[in-house]
Amino acid sequence: MQTLNVNLGDRSYPIHIGSGILARTGELLNQVGLSGKVAIVTNPTVAQFYLEPIQAALSKAGFTAVPILLPDGEAHKNSISLQMIYDRLIAERFERKSSILALGGGVVGDLAGFAAATYLRGVPYVQVPTTLLAHVDSSVGGKTGVNHADGKNLIGAFYQPKLVLIDIAVLKTLPRRELIAGLAEVIKYGVIEDTALFGLLEQQIDKLVQLDSDLLSQTIATSCAIKAKVVEADEREDDYRAVLNFGHTIGHALEAVTGYTELLHGEAVGVGMVKAAALSMRQGFCDQISFDRIVRLIGKAGLPTEIPGKVSLASLIQAMEVDKKAAGGKIKFVMCEGIGKTRFHHLAPSEILAALSA
Amino acid sequence: MQTLNVNLGDRSYPIHIGSGILARTGELLNQVGLSGKVAIVTNPTVAQFYLEPIQAALSKAGFTAVPILLPDGEAHKNSISLQMIYDRLIAERFERKSSILALGGGVVGDLAGFAAATYLRGVPYVQVPTTLLAHVDSSVGGKTGVNHADGKNLIGAFYQPKLVLIDIAVLKTLPRRELIAGLAEVIKYGVIEDTALFGLLEQQIDKLVQLDSDLLSQTIATSCAIKAKVVEADEREDDYRAVLNFGHTIGHALEAVTGYTELLHGEAVGVGMVKAAALSMRQGFCDQISFDRIVRLIGKAGLPTEIPGKVSLASLIQAMEVDKKAAGGKIKFVMCEGIGKTRFHHLAPSEILAALSA
Repeated sequence: MQTLNVNLGDRSYPIHIGSGILARTGELLNQVGLSGKVAIVTNPTVAQFYLEPIQAALSKAGFTAVPILLPDGEAHKNSISLQMIYDRLIAERFERKSSILALGGGVVGDLAGFAAATYLRGVPYVQVPTTLLAHVDSSVGGKTGVNHADGKNLIGAFYQPKLVLIDIAVLKTLPRRELIAGLAEVIKYGVIEDTALFGLLEQQIDKLVQLDSDLLSQTIATSCAIKAKVVEADEREDDYRAVLNFGHTIGHALEAVTGYTELLHGEAVGVGMVKAAALSMRQGFCDQISFDRIVRLIGKAGLPTEIPGKVSLASLIQAMEVDKKAAGGKIKFVMCEGIGKTRFHHLAPSEILAALSA
Repeated sequence: MQTLNVNLGDRSYPIHIGSGILARTGELLNQVGLSGKVAIVTNPTVAQFYLEPIQAALSKAGFTAVPILLPDGEAHKNSISLQMIYDRLIAERFERKSSILALGGGVVGDLAGFAAATYLRGVPYVQVPTTLLAHVDSSVGGKTGVNHADGKNLIGAFYQPKLVLIDIAVLKTLPRRELIAGLAEVIKYGVIEDTALFGLLEQQIDKLVQLDSDLLSQTIATSCAIKAKVVEADEREDDYRAVLNFGHTIGHALEAVTGYTELLHGEAVGVGMVKAAALSMRQGFCDQISFDRIVRLIGKAGLPTEIPGKVSLASLIQAMEVDKKAAGGKIKFVMCEGIGKTRFHHLAPSEILAALSA
């Protein structure tokens, strides 16, 4: 088991990464001072594999585990699911020292985290992510929230977990399509921050899809370390943390206009990164060779690289303007300067439209 | 105008207290770095007096003010009102640098503050309290939230405002009953922390009811300073901040069992303080003379001192157990040790019942 730390003063926490460490959940929760009642927020898809083992691990360490099963999928990351969690916590008399454990992907993590942020004005919570995307992205950094009918993540809070427990063994039950979608975020860390990671992925991304344990541990740890570093520098995304949105501005818009059903988040980010790299090149920040490498790696991972034909550019632009990263009319983009380096650049909707139409 | 500071590192903020300072709202918001769009969350009762003046003050300083009127009353401090605020903020394209101004009493302040805590994972907000209760209590300290069908303030966040603007001139439009209810919290500060304040109130509480400007400014500033000191020591109520709950454990229960319609919060706290003082005496923490002074001052303020006859003690105890301050089966009480000093003491429901029945 490897352990990284996210250093945020009194909100600091460890990230444990290893194979088979789910069995140690109870003991690892005890180590960060948790005890008593713990709600396991999950969904039926994940529960069939991991609810029993995690309940056993928690019971062994003296916890009273209360499973809360939510319907699966991004469509349920809303105030109705949130209300279901609150109702159960109240019915089970959860107190300020009780805790919440998110067992699942990003939807479960965001929902459970936001419930923890707002139940009794905040109770401790733990992330036990079960998708590659959640391993390297959503489980670290304390972004929690729910979607609103008018947009993704419009309601939420910055609220850090007490612990993140990444068991790479769970990836063996993850559908291949979701595994590949998770690779989009790993590639993103390479593009924005780490040429060595990018080079490693160019050589060996096939082995990640084949679930090579050592390589998975290494790339997940590297990804989490980059995310932790960014979050430590700018926890509440006043500025720099937005670097993590590379590929996400267009990616989020693409998810929105396709109703969150057609593309997985990582797939949308795959396309978004290609388009962000294209914008970067057009604006003179990125060279052709780096652009080609980015497009090639995203394609090699098995991710889409083009906006689906039926999506109009006008609708994409409109969705970006609603997105919360809009400020003062212009849209803040993360541009890549080759590989491993970025800069922010504000673009008017008309400039984006022109670039995407080219 | 007097100014106090709540010192909480990067979450520090000023409290301005004065008469007629509503007219300076825009300028004072500018001083803490706010500009652009500002949503004025209020209700029709308050709006009839103060919405226009505050809109004028904001426009003069270059703000775009967006009024959001919510139905008046504690019954509307719920997720429906919260959703109304979110919907308006989204419709008006509020961004991360836009802000929210709470113009009203505790209900408006808690709702607007929680909306600010959770819209786009947190936008800046300002408290402009219009009741005495909100002046001395709810507007300071960052407790925000909404009620749940099963209990008060079960959903919320600790989220500090950027500024608190207390214009004592607004008290002239406050119904006398609400003014008196607000005195309960002022008396509380005397009991828990300040014998001089308590003595002053014993001498001159009549002048407060008659809205003596100097005395109001002085007692409001003293109250806010005590609250600020407590919040600085324990922002998230891990322990010490609970001292502010003197009289509130029984008070909250009393509000709950009477359906939040019969007693104002301050009135329930008046009764709660008398009963907490009685419990303190019974447990040997408070002497008879101090107890008598507390009961006398609460009565002199015009606040109720007895549990309404129709309320059963059993239902009160049950409500206390649901209340979020319950921990490990016993209920945490703030006991007074005479006047100006307190201690925590955990009591089993049976002990409380025995004491209240005596």
